[in-house]
Amino acid sequence: MIVEPSLDEILVTPLKQIDTPGGDIFHGIKAMDAGFSGFGEVYFSWINFQAVKAWKQHRRMTMNLIVPVGNVRFAFYQESEDIFRTETIGQDNYCRLTVPPKIWFGFSGVFMPKSLVTNVANLSHDPHEVLRKDLNDISYLW
Amino acid sequence: MIVEPSLDEILVTPLKQIDTPGGDIFHGIKAMDAGFSGFGEVYFSWINFQAVKAWKQHRRMTMNLIVPVGNVRFAFYQESEDIFRTETIGQDNYCRLTVPPKIWFGFSGVFMPKSLVTNVANLSHDPHEVLRKDLNDISYLW
Repeated sequence: MIVEPSLDEILVTPLKQIDTPGGDIFHGIKAMDAGFSGFGEVYFSWINFQAVKAWKQHRRMTMNLIVPVGNVRFAFYQESEDIFRTETIGQDNYCRLTVPPKIWFGFSGVFMPKSLVTNVANLSHDPHEVLRKDLNDISYLW
Repeated sequence: MIVEPSLDEILVTPLKQIDTPGGDIFHGIKAMDAGFSGFGEVYFSWINFQAVKAWKQHRRMTMNLIVPVGNVRFAFYQESEDIFRTETIGQDNYCRLTVPPKIWFGFSGVFMPKSLVTNVANLSHDPHEVLRKDLNDISYLW
């Protein structure tokens, strides 16, 4: 039985950037939004230009990923089919990615000097639900 | 009867910045943390250097404010006592501010070119629960 979700189950939701005197308002996620699946933690991950953080898989966490600063290329890997999906989001393509558990993922900074990934996760950090592979364990041209 | 909370009820919680290859991890808030009071929305508010956004009061929203980019001076005003409290948080003093409802607040960017405020709120945006005053309605030296 294959429990790995299809990469089609990753949602891409365009978000509003609202022009506001003194500094713009950028939407993130509301409890009523598609893709929200409970609240466990919000944290931030900086990614330096041309750096790569890969590969991880969450066994139980659904991630909601928003990039308010810079631009980040995310790669997703479906092991059972040996296929990839790439999505680049950030200030120039301001969307939220909803990533179900059990998908291998990595990401790379494509903005100088660095980009900020915000993860609104349905679980608090738990090292026991994270699987890791080395960068070169999955062949992908970053 | 005074329903206005004391300014002492604003919590300041130091947060971790974790040195990580490729880009640091910055903590935000976990569901189990002191100050968390439910999830309604995450949104971002940019604040330009020397810009001021003031004054607002939420009637029902508890804000959890985190500044992963730049530095922001927040001012809080207790009308019944005519007193202020100021807290400057951001990348150089990386803390979370938990602000109960019914406190007047405003904020100013003290970092060039701009700073990013993240609000993890217990309610989704509802214009009916927001009170506003003009900048000059409350006398404060920004």
